Amino acid sequence: MEWINKQNVLIVGLGLMGGSYARALKRIGCHVSAIDRSEDTIRFAIENDVIDEGTCKNDDAKDFIKKADCIILALYPNAAVEWIKNNKEYIKDGIRITDVTGVKSCIVYAIQDALGDKAEFIAAHPMAGKETSGVECSDDRIFRDANYIVVPTDKNTEEAILWCENLGQILGFNKVSILSPEEHDEMIAYVSQLTHCIAVSLMTCKDNEHLKDYTGDSFRDLTRIARINENMWTELFHMNKEPLLKEMDLFINEITNLRNLIADDDSEAIKDKMRLSTARRSKFNSKK
Amino acid sequence: MEWINKQNVLIVGLGLMGGSYARALKRIGCHVSAIDRSEDTIRFAIENDVIDEGTCKNDDAKDFIKKADCIILALYPNAAVEWIKNNKEYIKDGIRITDVTGVKSCIVYAIQDALGDKAEFIAAHPMAGKETSGVECSDDRIFRDANYIVVPTDKNTEEAILWCENLGQILGFNKVSILSPEEHDEMIAYVSQLTHCIAVSLMTCKDNEHLKDYTGDSFRDLTRIARINENMWTELFHMNKEPLLKEMDLFINEITNLRNLIADDDSEAIKDKMRLSTARRSKFNSKK
Repeated sequence: MEWINKQNVLIVGLGLMGGSYARALKRIGCHVSAIDRSEDTIRFAIENDVIDEGTCKNDDAKDFIKKADCIILALYPNAAVEWIKNNKEYIKDGIRITDVTGVKSCIVYAIQDALGDKAEFIAAHPMAGKETSGVECSDDRIFRDANYIVVPTDKNTEEAILWCENLGQILGFNKVSILSPEEHDEMIAYVSQLTHCIAVSLMTCKDNEHLKDYTGDSFRDLTRIARINENMWTELFHMNKEPLLKEMDLFINEITNLRNLIADDDSEAIKDKMRLSTARRSKFNSKK
Repeated sequence: MEWINKQNVLIVGLGLMGGSYARALKRIGCHVSAIDRSEDTIRFAIENDVIDEGTCKNDDAKDFIKKADCIILALYPNAAVEWIKNNKEYIKDGIRITDVTGVKSCIVYAIQDALGDKAEFIAAHPMAGKETSGVECSDDRIFRDANYIVVPTDKNTEEAILWCENLGQILGFNKVSILSPEEHDEMIAYVSQLTHCIAVSLMTCKDNEHLKDYTGDSFRDLTRIARINENMWTELFHMNKEPLLKEMDLFINEITNLRNLIADDDSEAIKDKMRLSTARRSKFNSKK
């Protein structure tokens, strides 16, 4: 099954990410339908050509599921697992299902177990986003400079892995990679969840309203992601708790070490840390 | 003394900041001279019209100092104090001297004491910068979206404070404010020095070279300033040690609290933190 064919793609959950997938897939000629709890969301998406059709009604949803040639779960992690359990019976045999969830170990095995031989779930994490949410803010240009991770388990076929990599390319991601669920969760705890914890803590550790006339770019950069969807991120933190705590402990230990070097006036050790951070960050400089 | 007059401005130390001041002041018609240790720097600056004249030779420097109508110290903090002590005798009586240093309490009083009634030192902190250094990278466009802080003491005259505010406006800063040295140092420990400590620690706490294909914008944003001039920043940290340690302790305590809330699955308390950080960050959203 190739992405360029005119297939029926069903998107479950039409928020920022589901809407951005819809826009990209509709442009290449897929027939895009969507299920969402909100009638306003579905109406907006149809009126603005984000999707071809959609529903917020459970009975209609069954019909959409039955005719879907592939399904994209764009739900919060727990909701994705629940949705599969509740709707498995309506899914066409043998189709492929993927997702957009930011945590993996805690849901991938559960979804694959729930599906059994019915259909193949191949997980993916599109590492793109915005500080805003909702289909009204959806925009597939957010994929352009971002990375896309395919997250297979031992149960996945080569064909499904290729299909999922192909999806990442079609959506316009800058780079498509493959990681195991466990590798993914360690990585995401470090580069995404820890960074959000830092941004939030930097903003909450001190009353700073009167400081806004004095901030430079560095403070703005470090706190951009401190505007945060509290429901989604609290769930993501909970579902990736052990890897996140490990990365937080690494970081807290490291900045405590730096604090003590400053307290001890150990200039040479401080400079060594700065030289290491400069060398490492230089390799990240390009987005490519 | 108005900035629009054709006065002789002497810039001491022609790096990124000194060079950027020079470009802006030359454009409005000042005669700009510079003293720097490096012959290459002076040659580059003259050939590229950054300055009108300059020298790296001590004997010539005395002549430049003698004819300066005002002086801008664009040196590291300790070097600024030393320079005043060593060159006080050549300075024209009654002129105004300002600086670009990122720490204040530790140098402002020392410089004012060293000058006595000879000339008036009014401190300022241009909160602009780049991850690069040297006159070759100088560019007064870095002032456009940035803040400029005038940092007077009880010894400063109203006229000198106004003169210094006027300089910030002429250089093109977005906003000019006034803080005491102690207020400045607390503020800068939080919004600038702590953020650099965080960026460095995030980069050094874990070997992350193989992660560069998986990073999103958040990790890039939080580590942009992890490329750091280790000599300058180690000196800045040392000279603002007590305020910096206080802010680091606030932050380490706060992120440790968040870590423990995650460990305890206290979702409501985590969401409260996120709501607070979102509300606070929203007020910082605009650069204006």
